[in-house]
Amino acid sequence: MKRTPHEPHEAPGPRLEPDARRAHLLAVGVSVFGTKAYDDVQIDQIAQQAGVSRGLLYHYFPNKRAFFAAIVQLGYDEILAATQPDPALPPEAQLHAGLQAYVGYVVGHPHMYRAIFRSAASLEPSIQAVVNRNLELQAQRILSAQGIPLVPHSPTHVAARSWLAFLIQAVLDWLDQGATASRDDLIKVCVGALDGAMRAAQTLPCRA
Amino acid sequence: MKRTPHEPHEAPGPRLEPDARRAHLLAVGVSVFGTKAYDDVQIDQIAQQAGVSRGLLYHYFPNKRAFFAAIVQLGYDEILAATQPDPALPPEAQLHAGLQAYVGYVVGHPHMYRAIFRSAASLEPSIQAVVNRNLELQAQRILSAQGIPLVPHSPTHVAARSWLAFLIQAVLDWLDQGATASRDDLIKVCVGALDGAMRAAQTLPCRA
Repeated sequence: MKRTPHEPHEAPGPRLEPDARRAHLLAVGVSVFGTKAYDDVQIDQIAQQAGVSRGLLYHYFPNKRAFFAAIVQLGYDEILAATQPDPALPPEAQLHAGLQAYVGYVVGHPHMYRAIFRSAASLEPSIQAVVNRNLELQAQRILSAQGIPLVPHSPTHVAARSWLAFLIQAVLDWLDQGATASRDDLIKVCVGALDGAMRAAQTLPCRA
Repeated sequence: MKRTPHEPHEAPGPRLEPDARRAHLLAVGVSVFGTKAYDDVQIDQIAQQAGVSRGLLYHYFPNKRAFFAAIVQLGYDEILAATQPDPALPPEAQLHAGLQAYVGYVVGHPHMYRAIFRSAASLEPSIQAVVNRNLELQAQRILSAQGIPLVPHSPTHVAARSWLAFLIQAVLDWLDQGATASRDDLIKVCVGALDGAMRAAQTLPCRA
């Protein structure tokens, strides 16, 4: 693909403050990583689309991996913020509200969701570390909402982490089907899986 | 890293028949992809470890992606063969036997398991296609063993596919913990998740 020169109408301009510039670059990155496989993404293309030089992009993110890691972290931050539990609710209602908010986030940000979960699973340790840290935060929330203490590698801990993988697969499939099927049905299947896994896990001794 | 010359003691020799040579290259590939991130794997290094020239490796597999796709397919073929269900058993026993065989396979082939599930999730469409085709085959088996008809995108179909993601996450976590925890407990949590998801899915209208 030929590189077009810096086009003024695409440029948000040098007037952007660093935070705004960084946010703009991430937003462009989300749209690109959300629609292409990681390997097929070219940093040059993102810079071009954002209306900045390659050099400026590298000023914010030293390489493609670092850029992608920042996108993944942003996505997790947004999901965690969107699904903040209300501890005043009983556990079941917290879970339902959390899942409604989660699916609502996905519907509003399908590119981001696909980018972080389709592209993030493999790749190298720095991305894996981001994925794992956030998986862990979400697992803690799930256990905490159900009043189950977090015991690392216990059956309930494994159940919570694995259920998050269930949820992601279910939501990705649902997105791939155009997100037209019933949101409530999707949530019911996910709740069923969590209930079944937790019920089984809670009958077991504390180390899985 | 410096390239060492072709070392005779590493070379399985030019006497190998093409099928044996291909199998040997795949075996070396499994050990490399199972211990490194995809991006960090160098084809040169695999050729060197297999005692063949880079050119010979490329004769069998045109590029790194094609090589990795062949490894992923081999892994799935092995897992499917190892977990062949016995239709004479009742559904619950089929599931338990299948999961015992599955975990047994993983214990015997941890590199392969990690290679296909840690490295395969992202990457480009040809690998995604292999992953998805095999996810689908396994989902069909699960439904069939339970006597549930396969209706694409139905709640039970989504439940089966998503549960496979649960299983993979649970098994990867278990491997990461040294596979020392009880295999039966691991299986119980997975069975609980499947039961819960299927029970919920079966109460819903046929399209999720």
